[in-house]
Amino acid sequence: MESNMVFLPIILAVLGLIFMFIKMSWVKKQDAGDEKMKSISKSIKEGALAFLNAEYRLLLIFSIIASVALFVISQLVETTHWIIVIAFIIGAIFSALAGNIGMRIATDANARTTEAAKTSLPKALQVSFGGGTVMGLGVAGLAVLGLSLFFLLFVAMFVTGEGSFYDEMTVALEALAGFSLGAESIALFARVGGGIYTKAADVGADLVGKVEAGIPEDDPRNPATIADNVGDNVGDVAGMGADLFGSYVATVLAAMVLGNYLIRDMSSVTPFTDAFNGMGPILLPLVIAGVGIVASIIGTFLVKIKDNSAKEAEVQKALDFGNWASIIITLVASWFLIRWMLPETLQMNYFGEGLKEVPSRHVFYSCMIGLAVGALISAVTAYYTSLGKKPVLNIVKNSSTGAATNIIAGLAVGMKSTFLSVILFAAAIYGSYALAGFYGVALAASAMMATTAMQLAIDAFGPIADNAGGVAEMSELEDHVRERTDILDSVGNTTAAVGKGFAIASAALTALALFAAYVTFTGIDGINIFKANVLAMLFVGGMIPVIFSALAMESVGKAAMEMVQEVRRQFREIPGIMEGTGTPDYAKCVDISTKAALKEMILPGLITIITPIIIGLLFGAEPLGGYMAGVCVSGVMWAIFQNNAGGAWDNAKKSFEAGVEINGEMTFKGSDAHKAAVTGDTVGDPFKDTSGPSMNILIKLTCLVGLVIAPILGGHSANTHKNAKEIRVEMKDAGGDQVEAKITVKTTENGETKTEVKEVKGTDEEVKKEIEKHE
Amino acid sequence: MESNMVFLPIILAVLGLIFMFIKMSWVKKQDAGDEKMKSISKSIKEGALAFLNAEYRLLLIFSIIASVALFVISQLVETTHWIIVIAFIIGAIFSALAGNIGMRIATDANARTTEAAKTSLPKALQVSFGGGTVMGLGVAGLAVLGLSLFFLLFVAMFVTGEGSFYDEMTVALEALAGFSLGAESIALFARVGGGIYTKAADVGADLVGKVEAGIPEDDPRNPATIADNVGDNVGDVAGMGADLFGSYVATVLAAMVLGNYLIRDMSSVTPFTDAFNGMGPILLPLVIAGVGIVASIIGTFLVKIKDNSAKEAEVQKALDFGNWASIIITLVASWFLIRWMLPETLQMNYFGEGLKEVPSRHVFYSCMIGLAVGALISAVTAYYTSLGKKPVLNIVKNSSTGAATNIIAGLAVGMKSTFLSVILFAAAIYGSYALAGFYGVALAASAMMATTAMQLAIDAFGPIADNAGGVAEMSELEDHVRERTDILDSVGNTTAAVGKGFAIASAALTALALFAAYVTFTGIDGINIFKANVLAMLFVGGMIPVIFSALAMESVGKAAMEMVQEVRRQFREIPGIMEGTGTPDYAKCVDISTKAALKEMILPGLITIITPIIIGLLFGAEPLGGYMAGVCVSGVMWAIFQNNAGGAWDNAKKSFEAGVEINGEMTFKGSDAHKAAVTGDTVGDPFKDTSGPSMNILIKLTCLVGLVIAPILGGHSANTHKNAKEIRVEMKDAGGDQVEAKITVKTTENGETKTEVKEVKGTDEEVKKEIEKHE
Repeated sequence: MESNMVFLPIILAVLGLIFMFIKMSWVKKQDAGDEKMKSISKSIKEGALAFLNAEYRLLLIFSIIASVALFVISQLVETTHWIIVIAFIIGAIFSALAGNIGMRIATDANARTTEAAKTSLPKALQVSFGGGTVMGLGVAGLAVLGLSLFFLLFVAMFVTGEGSFYDEMTVALEALAGFSLGAESIALFARVGGGIYTKAADVGADLVGKVEAGIPEDDPRNPATIADNVGDNVGDVAGMGADLFGSYVATVLAAMVLGNYLIRDMSSVTPFTDAFNGMGPILLPLVIAGVGIVASIIGTFLVKIKDNSAKEAEVQKALDFGNWASIIITLVASWFLIRWMLPETLQMNYFGEGLKEVPSRHVFYSCMIGLAVGALISAVTAYYTSLGKKPVLNIVKNSSTGAATNIIAGLAVGMKSTFLSVILFAAAIYGSYALAGFYGVALAASAMMATTAMQLAIDAFGPIADNAGGVAEMSELEDHVRERTDILDSVGNTTAAVGKGFAIASAALTALALFAAYVTFTGIDGINIFKANVLAMLFVGGMIPVIFSALAMESVGKAAMEMVQEVRRQFREIPGIMEGTGTPDYAKCVDISTKAALKEMILPGLITIITPIIIGLLFGAEPLGGYMAGVCVSGVMWAIFQNNAGGAWDNAKKSFEAGVEINGEMTFKGSDAHKAAVTGDTVGDPFKDTSGPSMNILIKLTCLVGLVIAPILGGHSANTHKNAKEIRVEMKDAGGDQVEAKITVKTTENGETKTEVKEVKGTDEEVKKEIEKHE
Repeated sequence: MESNMVFLPIILAVLGLIFMFIKMSWVKKQDAGDEKMKSISKSIKEGALAFLNAEYRLLLIFSIIASVALFVISQLVETTHWIIVIAFIIGAIFSALAGNIGMRIATDANARTTEAAKTSLPKALQVSFGGGTVMGLGVAGLAVLGLSLFFLLFVAMFVTGEGSFYDEMTVALEALAGFSLGAESIALFARVGGGIYTKAADVGADLVGKVEAGIPEDDPRNPATIADNVGDNVGDVAGMGADLFGSYVATVLAAMVLGNYLIRDMSSVTPFTDAFNGMGPILLPLVIAGVGIVASIIGTFLVKIKDNSAKEAEVQKALDFGNWASIIITLVASWFLIRWMLPETLQMNYFGEGLKEVPSRHVFYSCMIGLAVGALISAVTAYYTSLGKKPVLNIVKNSSTGAATNIIAGLAVGMKSTFLSVILFAAAIYGSYALAGFYGVALAASAMMATTAMQLAIDAFGPIADNAGGVAEMSELEDHVRERTDILDSVGNTTAAVGKGFAIASAALTALALFAAYVTFTGIDGINIFKANVLAMLFVGGMIPVIFSALAMESVGKAAMEMVQEVRRQFREIPGIMEGTGTPDYAKCVDISTKAALKEMILPGLITIITPIIIGLLFGAEPLGGYMAGVCVSGVMWAIFQNNAGGAWDNAKKSFEAGVEINGEMTFKGSDAHKAAVTGDTVGDPFKDTSGPSMNILIKLTCLVGLVIAPILGGHSANTHKNAKEIRVEMKDAGGDQVEAKITVKTTENGETKTEVKEVKGTDEEVKKEIEKHE
């Protein structure tokens, strides 16, 4: 079993995918309602697929160019194999596939949720959460499957035992980085494009429909209403799916790279050997991810409410219960996995402090830190963005003196929310590093991401419920249906905000792990910001998230303007729209959003990918490290600031729906204060749905690009040691007290390597003595 | 002459102060107008002084606590002398004095400018610019005088020749850092307090007066109008004066520290000797600063316009001419000073690259880079914030669809403006370091700051003209008077925006120089962000400017709310205000602003000062370095973002005054688009006048605090070398071809130092041989 450990995550991933198909067919079997509902659902699905198809055509061009560039790199750099191109392409396809599966099921589940809500709220939750589950398992299953299969392939290709294990494994992991790069590139475009699409449609539909024409949200007379509902799917579902797929892959990859580094550290003391082909620390994160899939499946069974009388609190509790169950299962499993797969004592090289002995349970504590900080940062996010809490109430209060004070208050809330989040995050870095070095940091991130399937199920359930409400409104169903979908939608809004807190926390930890992997890949001594060129690039890196956000916000503005003009034109030129006798041209609005989103996502996408390449080639590895750090530091601040300001503005506006007390007076929708709050929400929309969430991908992709070009910038540090001796032992149980061992001794002198292989069989003691001879 | 070089800056500083007194008495001799004007001017002056006095009382408490803390530090750390406390106190007093002088003359000059504008625009410019000149020379003169005198004292006290020159000089410069710390601490409180004051009064006066009561700006019926005019003085004059005083001192100090470091580098090759008591590189920045004062005086004579027909463009041209003249004079003088005061070839230790030979003219090129980048960043700022340029026009266009789109556009402009500014800034670091190491970076900053007197004269002229307009309005003078002061005011707005660009550029370079000084003071190897604790603190540092900005903005909000309620109360309760028969209670509004500003400035001030101390003590020198870098990177972004967004919103609003074309239609004041623009401007006010400019001081003060506590965190690097030999030679001309030389040889073995002194006299050749014997 142990020596074929890599098959375990493959089996678990396939299990997840099988369960996904079962759940998918269950959702599809549900009744999709009457003809009108079906037709609306179909329009949304078609619009969403039309966007995805148009996006894929554009991404195909990008992928071809990127593949050629990668191929050229692989030809120039000795240690990079051309197979990285294949990994990149498959990574891109898997990422797109993950988004696509999610979007198809989400657009199938919306009308079915509405239909279920006619009779039963528990059923409606089951259907909408079922849709989310399909997406979550699709993303997690594909990620673990892709990573494991490629790892199997690359180990077979590159880890032949001819060169040093560390160097060969580095080549294998570098090729695997291609898979991650492909996934993350698609994620960037999907997130930015989806974010622009959804907000352009939303703002366009609201400004003309709600404000100018005075018709309610999701009213079928509004030409942009289908585009608006499509937007929820391409932004919140497909965009988020690709985003988390990318995070998940990147996190596990980074942990594997650092596992390899750990093996090297340990080999410097005694030959590293374990039952897992000497790859335990590398396989551990992959296995934890696989176990997380099973834990998530178990968790989904626990998400249940009893009857139609349930309110938001019960639904939230059901989701929380399922979530915590899967987290705790993963944590308990990690304890045993770590004991099983890691040696009891690890030797880790702490930068500047030399080799330290670290008990393997410290890795488990790092995992706990990761989970704790993920949960706490989510809680901080919830505090700053939730209805009825002080920050949102403060924005509400400031709405009474006009839009300006509302905006100032919202900006201040977003800014202030960085305090606790960053302190927690810094504590996580500090703590997990102190416990188990950068391997600890990477495993903290891995643990956080292990239950991605469950997280995503909870996240994706929101937009499905939102769409279900839209279908109910457009089909003019009875009020109690909309009330039920509204309960689900409201919970979905909270989980969306919390999910963003989780996403940025995991992205930041992932970026750090990638950053650590980058330093080890390039073999530089560290990143010293006392060198002026490194410091200069730290500043340049700090500027990129700001510019990226500005471009994303401007794009939303431009696209929304076009949409506004089109909606106005339709109201003006199509007779009978307002009376309900004329049919609006929904497709035209979908088309405008699609074209604008695709056009506008190109520039920010290219800046993200090309800038680190230019800096790396012009200035070298260490300044690029400074640049990466700058992007991370600034990106984390701007992500938290924008997400939380946007979330707080949104709920400040929503507060007026139920009525709020300002200076002793109850204030409602339609008041001047409410109008000021609507202005704040409109500013917050691109913050929280376009530029804010893009920061996650920006920081991860920056570090990934760095990682992929690392071999060009500096040779692997192992290569720089011209004289080295490496001993590698593979042991197998040979029945009784006998063991078989294959001892490989590699001696490098003046750059030339000689390899000696010896196979021995005997008792444990005998084999150990034989090994010692070679040291 | 050469060996008493330190007296040159003293003489030049005194010259500047004498000229200041001449100019001051000239301004005071001008006619201050009729009784009403005098009374208004007096009210403004009294309000401003009342604020300053209240502020001083609070700062006295702070200074006492800080002094005690410093004294404790000086007792605990061997290398820190208690005299640093005196330096700190004098620094604080000088900084307060600089602000005070400026504010007194500004409040004297306002009514006199109005009176002059009755008959002559050239005269009005002369008076208002004269007021600015007094302030500029006061700041520069006090800064150079204080630095030089303390330097003289500390050299006499500490550089006795008993220990190594480098170590003794380090102690002297550390004590001098106390002077800078005192200055910068006061600057922080003055900037933040002044910024809160001015915006609370401004927003309060506008919201109730302009919007609710519908009376024009500066109308005497508005109870907050005096507070508003006082605010211009305490924020834009006293606050800015203290800010630039702090920058100026910190820049020169940092350059001196790096000069000492340069001497050490050069001593490691051959004994360092020059005609300036072996202190040429340390004295150079001080002398350049002194020469800059004279250059500024010459420049002020060139600021002139011909006649009353002059418009904004002519006034701007006159200011530009004077400014460029003083810059070019300084630059030319620097060329000769560098040739005279530095050896032709310098040996500099480049981190990680070892010792390099650098021709001294490279230091001059660094100065040129500093001046060029300062000018270019100012130009970028002007582009993003000027009337009629694309960014402002874009905000204007987006105002037509409401406040939300105006806000989004403004935020995007601020964010986008970081791009070029940061690229320029990074290029400055990169270039000046490549040319002449961190000494080059520090001299780039010094050159940029050398003409501070002129810069400040131009900056301070703006609020004087603004106040002059207020006096004209409140005294109900003829329209042509207000038109003339409006021309000056309008130019003043542009120079204020450009001045902010210059201030952040210089603050950032200064912070870098301080950062470099910090690394050398602590004697650490560098700041490696690949260490997890350093990286964690980089994130914490990055968060501080965000939190600081949030606190400052919230403070303005709270204070403005109080002001709004008071103004509303007065309108309600004092009979006859609106008819002009009742007199508003101006003093009450002044009092509210004063109290609110003082209360609210405490928390951000303490965070700035205490956080680095805690981090340094808890985590050590290298993590503190990471923290400092985080504050700098994030602070620069947020400063540029906030200043430029605020400036652009302001001018977008102003665009409507003359009328703008939006989608082919002329749009004016009072339109919906204009109202949206007013909202944007209100959001921008705390951005550009409170939180934005505070970032400068935040980053400088963080680095200064680090510098002052550096000796606690790690011994000087020289002390860590237990075995060392240092040779020092002082040469004097002894008539004919004879020279006298005093050779001091210090040998340190196992921490014990022996000193041998030998005096020789002979020809150049003979003395050189004698020196070589000791090497």
